[in-house]
Amino acid sequence: MLIDHLSIIGVGLIGGSLARALRKTKLVNRVTGCNRHEATLKKAIELDVIDDYSLNINEAVSNADVVVIGTPLSTTEKLLPQIVESLKPGAVLTDVGSAKAGVVNKAREVMGDRLSCFVPGHPIAGTEQSGVEASFADLFVDHRVILTPFEETDTTAHELITHMWQAVGADVIDLEVKHHDEVLAATSHLPHMLAYALVDCLAGMQERDEIFKYAAGGFADFTRIASSSPEMWHDICFSNREALLNTLDVFSKHIDQIKDAIEKSDSDQLLKIFQRAKQARDKFTAGRNQLNNATE
Amino acid sequence: MLIDHLSIIGVGLIGGSLARALRKTKLVNRVTGCNRHEATLKKAIELDVIDDYSLNINEAVSNADVVVIGTPLSTTEKLLPQIVESLKPGAVLTDVGSAKAGVVNKAREVMGDRLSCFVPGHPIAGTEQSGVEASFADLFVDHRVILTPFEETDTTAHELITHMWQAVGADVIDLEVKHHDEVLAATSHLPHMLAYALVDCLAGMQERDEIFKYAAGGFADFTRIASSSPEMWHDICFSNREALLNTLDVFSKHIDQIKDAIEKSDSDQLLKIFQRAKQARDKFTAGRNQLNNATE
Repeated sequence: MLIDHLSIIGVGLIGGSLARALRKTKLVNRVTGCNRHEATLKKAIELDVIDDYSLNINEAVSNADVVVIGTPLSTTEKLLPQIVESLKPGAVLTDVGSAKAGVVNKAREVMGDRLSCFVPGHPIAGTEQSGVEASFADLFVDHRVILTPFEETDTTAHELITHMWQAVGADVIDLEVKHHDEVLAATSHLPHMLAYALVDCLAGMQERDEIFKYAAGGFADFTRIASSSPEMWHDICFSNREALLNTLDVFSKHIDQIKDAIEKSDSDQLLKIFQRAKQARDKFTAGRNQLNNATE
Repeated sequence: MLIDHLSIIGVGLIGGSLARALRKTKLVNRVTGCNRHEATLKKAIELDVIDDYSLNINEAVSNADVVVIGTPLSTTEKLLPQIVESLKPGAVLTDVGSAKAGVVNKAREVMGDRLSCFVPGHPIAGTEQSGVEASFADLFVDHRVILTPFEETDTTAHELITHMWQAVGADVIDLEVKHHDEVLAATSHLPHMLAYALVDCLAGMQERDEIFKYAAGGFADFTRIASSSPEMWHDICFSNREALLNTLDVFSKHIDQIKDAIEKSDSDQLLKIFQRAKQARDKFTAGRNQLNNATE
């Protein structure tokens, strides 16, 4: 048994999938869920995702050995003080938010002498679906989970959360908080902004019906992430505001370079941009294939 | 037999796949290939894509009942005069370019009294691969092919090309030339620019190695099209210059709206954009599923 009693605050896609995976591998004795809406918790019981639940956050937390916060980032920051006051001695706290500086700053502010038990985490997994109905035990298999322990983080707590994610099939790595937020702004937050902006842009065009009718498979792939939860992405934007605004600026400059090359009929410039991008993308694909072959 | 003798100028992914599909269904008696490089044609013979070949474009065209131009757009415009002078009486000419106004204008300029035999076409199919090695007979099954016949286009020629694409499994529709270019600028050309710009942008960042290392599945989907042929996309940009520059401007305004909402901490505005986009994307997915179910 890795964890005797696990509590999940926010039983959605991530929290629900983690509960399923840990219960399936019998590495947890009891999983308690806590959510704003009782209907979600009843659904989670019905789907055999959790063992029991409480609508009272203090009650849900007070007996847990590990507490996982699976709520959107703004909710996590709001709930943190309440969760901390109910943590039992020796309990370990982690979260699953896509940006880390905001929640770490909040933890420094409100956790006092319990700060060392907090291990910030970010599973790089998910689909454009959300909610406990979309959860499944294999969600984390062969996916990366980034932990961003900070100076005060307790080594034993860090090890426990590392083992928890490894036990459900994830490849766990550590990154420094700020570095995590910069890298994720580029690889995940920026692409989501582009997908949202693209779909919103096309939906506002006069020929919108035809545009969506004649869209090809590439378009479906490209815009899949625009079906992601607006509330979750709203929170990520504000939580990783600075890094995201920076990458949006850098990106806009690249779009301007393409526009400029087309406007000025600069064949060489346009070809160079496309060739550089293709080369980098092909290298990325080769790297992924290598990784996949290595884990087979 | 639908077509006795077919000639394909530019035996790549699209031309090669069409040749494979028509030969597989025995709707063509003989396929002649023509290409700049003999190695490609030898490869096409070896892969059993074509029956024979000629490096001389006039020789390749002169006996054909249908000539398909499968070259990048700038090459198509360059070759058009030479192809036209060798067309036998009654022959039908079509192309596969992703933008139509440029090639139709060129045809008006150089085809004289043969103009009516030209049926401009655009199969909405392909992968990020290119070249005859990547071709396969099922490429067009359940994919759309847009034809953009114009006022002078001969009805019999139009019907023959419609039947040719339907015979290889495609769903053939007609669009007016300008309308085609506007719709495709939005659904295909713009997303390709975004993917190229995004990958080029990330590849230029200091943390490039880590960025590509920690990129998730969504990123792979989102940037797949950045592996497309730079030469082909270079030609498309210049061929559909006006419509593409317009959509790039509209897109940039949408990115600015997102930036603005984040900068001003305008939660409502940001949520509204994401919600509108999600709604449109979900509707698009529902429409595609409906279409797929209907064709099952």
